[in-house]
Amino acid sequence: MKFIRDSLHGNLQLDDFEVKIVDTPQIQRLRRIKQLGFTYLVYPGANHTRFEHSIGAMYLSSRLANNLQLDDHKKQMLRVCAILHDAGHGPFSHVSEGVLGTSHEELTSKLIKESQLSDILSEKFNIHEIIKTINGKGSLGQAISGELDVDRMDYLLRDSYYTGVAYGVIDVERLIYNMKLDGNLVLKQKGVQAAESMLLARYFMYPSVYQHHTTRIINSMFRRCFKNLLETGEVEAERIYEYDDLDIIVAARAQTGYIKDIIQKLDNRDLFKTVFSLKLDELENPDAVFKLGDEEIRRIETELCEDLNVPEGYLMVDVPEYPSFDEMKTQVAVEDDIVKLGDISTIVRALRDARFNHADLCIYIPKEYANKTAGFQFEDYIEIPD
Amino acid sequence: MKFIRDSLHGNLQLDDFEVKIVDTPQIQRLRRIKQLGFTYLVYPGANHTRFEHSIGAMYLSSRLANNLQLDDHKKQMLRVCAILHDAGHGPFSHVSEGVLGTSHEELTSKLIKESQLSDILSEKFNIHEIIKTINGKGSLGQAISGELDVDRMDYLLRDSYYTGVAYGVIDVERLIYNMKLDGNLVLKQKGVQAAESMLLARYFMYPSVYQHHTTRIINSMFRRCFKNLLETGEVEAERIYEYDDLDIIVAARAQTGYIKDIIQKLDNRDLFKTVFSLKLDELENPDAVFKLGDEEIRRIETELCEDLNVPEGYLMVDVPEYPSFDEMKTQVAVEDDIVKLGDISTIVRALRDARFNHADLCIYIPKEYANKTAGFQFEDYIEIPD
Amino acid sequence: MKFIRDSLHGNLQLDDFEVKIVDTPQIQRLRRIKQLGFTYLVYPGANHTRFEHSIGAMYLSSRLANNLQLDDHKKQMLRVCAILHDAGHGPFSHVSEGVLGTSHEELTSKLIKESQLSDILSEKFNIHEIIKTINGKGSLGQAISGELDVDRMDYLLRDSYYTGVAYGVIDVERLIYNMKLDGNLVLKQKGVQAAESMLLARYFMYPSVYQHHTTRIINSMFRRCFKNLLETGEVEAERIYEYDDLDIIVAARAQTGYIKDIIQKLDNRDLFKTVFSLKLDELENPDAVFKLGDEEIRRIETELCEDLNVPEGYLMVDVPEYPSFDEMKTQVAVEDDIVKLGDISTIVRALRDARFNHADLCIYIPKEYANKTAGFQFEDYIEIPD
Amino acid sequence: MKFIRDSLHGNLQLDDFEVKIVDTPQIQRLRRIKQLGFTYLVYPGANHTRFEHSIGAMYLSSRLANNLQLDDHKKQMLRVCAILHDAGHGPFSHVSEGVLGTSHEELTSKLIKESQLSDILSEKFNIHEIIKTINGKGSLGQAISGELDVDRMDYLLRDSYYTGVAYGVIDVERLIYNMKLDGNLVLKQKGVQAAESMLLARYFMYPSVYQHHTTRIINSMFRRCFKNLLETGEVEAERIYEYDDLDIIVAARAQTGYIKDIIQKLDNRDLFKTVFSLKLDELENPDAVFKLGDEEIRRIETELCEDLNVPEGYLMVDVPEYPSFDEMKTQVAVEDDIVKLGDISTIVRALRDARFNHADLCIYIPKEYANKTAGFQFEDYIEIPD
Repeated sequence: MKFIRDSLHGNLQLDDFEVKIVDTPQIQRLRRIKQLGFTYLVYPGANHTRFEHSIGAMYLSSRLANNLQLDDHKKQMLRVCAILHDAGHGPFSHVSEGVLGTSHEELTSKLIKESQLSDILSEKFNIHEIIKTINGKGSLGQAISGELDVDRMDYLLRDSYYTGVAYGVIDVERLIYNMKLDGNLVLKQKGVQAAESMLLARYFMYPSVYQHHTTRIINSMFRRCFKNLLETGEVEAERIYEYDDLDIIVAARAQTGYIKDIIQKLDNRDLFKTVFSLKLDELENPDAVFKLGDEEIRRIETELCEDLNVPEGYLMVDVPEYPSFDEMKTQVAVEDDIVKLGDISTIVRALRDARFNHADLCIYIPKEYANKTAGFQFEDYIEIPD
Repeated sequence: MKFIRDSLHGNLQLDDFEVKIVDTPQIQRLRRIKQLGFTYLVYPGANHTRFEHSIGAMYLSSRLANNLQLDDHKKQMLRVCAILHDAGHGPFSHVSEGVLGTSHEELTSKLIKESQLSDILSEKFNIHEIIKTINGKGSLGQAISGELDVDRMDYLLRDSYYTGVAYGVIDVERLIYNMKLDGNLVLKQKGVQAAESMLLARYFMYPSVYQHHTTRIINSMFRRCFKNLLETGEVEAERIYEYDDLDIIVAARAQTGYIKDIIQKLDNRDLFKTVFSLKLDELENPDAVFKLGDEEIRRIETELCEDLNVPEGYLMVDVPEYPSFDEMKTQVAVEDDIVKLGDISTIVRALRDARFNHADLCIYIPKEYANKTAGFQFEDYIEIPD
Repeated sequence: MKFIRDSLHGNLQLDDFEVKIVDTPQIQRLRRIKQLGFTYLVYPGANHTRFEHSIGAMYLSSRLANNLQLDDHKKQMLRVCAILHDAGHGPFSHVSEGVLGTSHEELTSKLIKESQLSDILSEKFNIHEIIKTINGKGSLGQAISGELDVDRMDYLLRDSYYTGVAYGVIDVERLIYNMKLDGNLVLKQKGVQAAESMLLARYFMYPSVYQHHTTRIINSMFRRCFKNLLETGEVEAERIYEYDDLDIIVAARAQTGYIKDIIQKLDNRDLFKTVFSLKLDELENPDAVFKLGDEEIRRIETELCEDLNVPEGYLMVDVPEYPSFDEMKTQVAVEDDIVKLGDISTIVRALRDARFNHADLCIYIPKEYANKTAGFQFEDYIEIPD
Repeated sequence: MKFIRDSLHGNLQLDDFEVKIVDTPQIQRLRRIKQLGFTYLVYPGANHTRFEHSIGAMYLSSRLANNLQLDDHKKQMLRVCAILHDAGHGPFSHVSEGVLGTSHEELTSKLIKESQLSDILSEKFNIHEIIKTINGKGSLGQAISGELDVDRMDYLLRDSYYTGVAYGVIDVERLIYNMKLDGNLVLKQKGVQAAESMLLARYFMYPSVYQHHTTRIINSMFRRCFKNLLETGEVEAERIYEYDDLDIIVAARAQTGYIKDIIQKLDNRDLFKTVFSLKLDELENPDAVFKLGDEEIRRIETELCEDLNVPEGYLMVDVPEYPSFDEMKTQVAVEDDIVKLGDISTIVRALRDARFNHADLCIYIPKEYANKTAGFQFEDYIEIPD
């Protein structure tokens, strides 16, 4: 028996088997992966890690299991899945994910199979069932990776606590209490409002935190730096889940030229500025923006660099993250029927309609070049596919 | 004008001059220095940094200045001192301080003089007055570095928030409201209870957080590792305030032998175990323990390593931090007189009497050697000076 | 100078003039008027009063005034208006308001003119300007009684704190910071999201707290009891702002028959049950329901009582509160223009569309009669006007 | 199954049997008994009631029972005792208790025996065991009424929450986790610090809240008013647990003369002023002050009224509450022994020594008489017994 004191949920208890999992280097590494990557440059309190989040998700999965009246074995399986669900995350979490082109779920599966975790887990569980659940499949998969999963509940609360942005405060008690197993995990009708509220929490956290304008600039800078670093061979993409945040930053500092320059700018918070912004909700077909391929974007950047006399790599075209609203698909038990949340909730539909409200395609360059761009016709360079 | 969102104190406002200071690499580096060093291995939420603490102290100094009715110039001086007061901290804050043998106050003074900070500060202030104040001297020095300073107020609140240990929750409003300038900063008699409460907060935070048993093991391990690293020349002591936490850890990982082994143990939370503990409050003269010199301790360790057949460096004798209670000296205005808090408060005197309650001299070794030590007479090796 | 410790906002400071106002019996009475009426029968922590809310609104009006850079006189006027804004509330706040047919704003104006408040206020202010502002008129009226006023900000936060329902947690800092005076009080475009979030907070608080199903039953019971009590002459409608919650309850207990029975049921939480519910969002024209006059409702009740053999007064038809969304009208400064929030926010429009989602017309009777109603065709009795 | 939302502890679950107890008029009455009497005149948020406190204590008793690994029957017995433990409280809780001369524990026992509670409880439990436990006897009695009981834990947290005074924030998790059953409920040695911290919380709450100077004036006024009211026969002492706060206040308002005058002063917060204060810690034998009998105090008051020409009843001599520190007696398991907390804790001993620090005997009169007393030798009238 062991206790871990969590700043959000209080004293959390783990049994010996769970301690064995938590004590592997694979899970301990998560103590050195920031939950929100470089967001601490915008919200100085956002230094929390994937480790505490995973333990927090474990706690919420217990509460959900209690409410679903799962037996002890199934309950522990859920807890273990929650501990493991982010183990495959590379440094700086989602920021590196985009560059690598592999999802952290795939990496987590691979990591579990290839490491000592597989031996420990086999003592009590079927590895394949664990992996399936972590990937959102099977009857309990939705609890770990679904529209209203414990992952999301924990991160909304936690990100609010550490950033100081109140939007993520959700009613976890009401949500958990209003779930039931009906083949899959479904929401009772009485829980619709709590689900709406959670969806709204995410909606408001997006422009304030996850896609905060400055965060997007920082992420663009880091992604470019990280990509170049991968190309040097100093960091190996296929071993990404062995590195922590520190490895990558210090490896970048040890380089010369572009990589060193960008990491130094990040260290000193000497950030690029936005010189152009194209609001998606003013476009006729906003979805088209997301069809812009990497190659096309590089081409636009190269053209702009030439015409503006900015060195290659110092002008970045940033397409926003696609605003997905999976909560639309949440299954709700209405009388004898199962319907989709999006079909019965005006609010949820409104959020889908509003999904491009805060989205814009942006162009960033270092502030010393910013004055060159007054009156420049950026729009002429951007051709959006049909 | 700029706002920084603090998870404790809300939206904090800075003017252009203050932004210029905060935006220097010297202050930005503090974003990468954890406030509580390796405490995140014990309390997983304790990832907060010297940066947010410094901004928080700035905010509290404003409130104190308002209450003391200082003019705008003096108020900003206090704010600036609060921003700067930790700028000289080396990586992992106090853990490295002990190894280096230089206080962070000295280093802060040196850093200010030698960096661009000196030019920026000179625009509005006398550098010597700034440095004096940061070092606790002059009429406002006690506000920044005294018994009841804004530094202490902020760190107690902040460490409570991030560790989840409630003990540090203090009544900042009552404390600040009950201070006045009378030559020096003194406490009004009505504030005695708030001061007692703050002193108790610190007293309770010591064994729970600052000198938590596991934290002490970790710190002993890291200090040894860090000391050896300094000896390799890869890290230079006189430039210590240019490094961040990452630099040191990654530098240690790049070594071989002992240094690499210890940092790996820390990374994997594979910690030494306590095999012996000598409670100070059971000694006739506990103070004598603190006279044990570094050389003497090394000698004891060497003897023990030989007799237990443990390799050099893998047995650590840890003398606890000396429990100081400077708050005893807090000046209190009682009618027309100024007296010491320790002279009028039964509680404060009790705390001084209880100061060795939680203190013990410990011996740590890796767990794989721990079974060798059953029944071993450690006490025979420890000779406490008179 | 005086401090009042508020559980939400901390130590709040009042000057001598403000203390004189707060110390009148008219304002002290508010300590005995519960902010949420009988809601404490649903959320046992909801015992907070109009007094603490008024002081809290005073505090928020200061922060707004600071942000608008008002001079000291105007700032104090706002503070004073906030202290006074609810002085005319009758016992149990809004629950009695409906029965009396006079708004609390009118009563507040009358009370100020007729009491010693008028003399005190005249020392520093023009009474007519105070009353105008409290009624939402003049350049600062919107700050006290508008769509995004300090009243609403304080009550959302406060009702959340005391009920334990998290939905009301709003970002007051961002809201206040994003307001400006432009003839009237208008919202800057950057504040749209904070305004949306506040609107949503209200939207979610409605079914959870303000129009919670059990709260509606309780309010129906109390209103009927209160109406009968007025008819006895024991309580005088025109002096309603001289009574407190206690007066009314104890006066009802002193009666016999129906009044005593209902108040006893409320005391013992022996509540009526819902035997019929007509969801407004399933009607073709939900707005028509609100055209049902008092007389018509009484007629339906009488018919039902007869046919169900339930004594008169023990069957209640409850038309829900009309869900107004004044925030739609919030003025937002967009570039050089002033537009309405409802015109630029998808979310706000969705809320208007969803305004009947949680609304239903209900029929309540004591539980001992409830079994008589199985299969009864209540819908046949309800004729909704075109 | 039913949920009650508590603003402190979240959603609390009750089974049908517990709901039956809670739904009795005896427990529902606690919704109308303020936990801290008239403290809301000092801290405007202190409107919380015995009802929510009792439900909160029920919740904590569950957590304690889980930790002690009690079986379901014993666990529910503890929960039920917690729900009932304050049922005998008269209006305004402890303020009336002193006047009546009967403890609320005795009244609770009597109430349980004489009401329907006895029938309900008998379905599952032995009434005598319930009453014994509520009175702190038997192996589980200390959990409900002991030095570190769930009552105290809940009220410290709750009183802090509603007054906004942070001192009562205690580490409930550590306390509960460090208790064990060893014949009686005893504290493990590891819990000593948590117990010290709770003791300190109480120590600090005394002068700030429970014996706040203004609270003492108010309580003196109310007690006098209440005593006179009992003498009129309008309120009957032996039925005290049938009244609520409202009954008493409205009954007093309905009187004439002295009673009406005092209750009006309380309603309007027109409070007596302190004209004399004798600090107990400056006396040689402070304990003697508590030997002053009621008769002796009345005699002093009468003499003073005559000599100061103040009408009878308008001068009050107030002996402070005796500062008991029962926590001294907490049993602590130290190795194989059971010792008293006071014997092993320096802090606890210091608190006993400091127990008269904030205590003073005071004299209050209405402010319109206060100016008559300048230079008056009150001390000549007070003769303290040996």
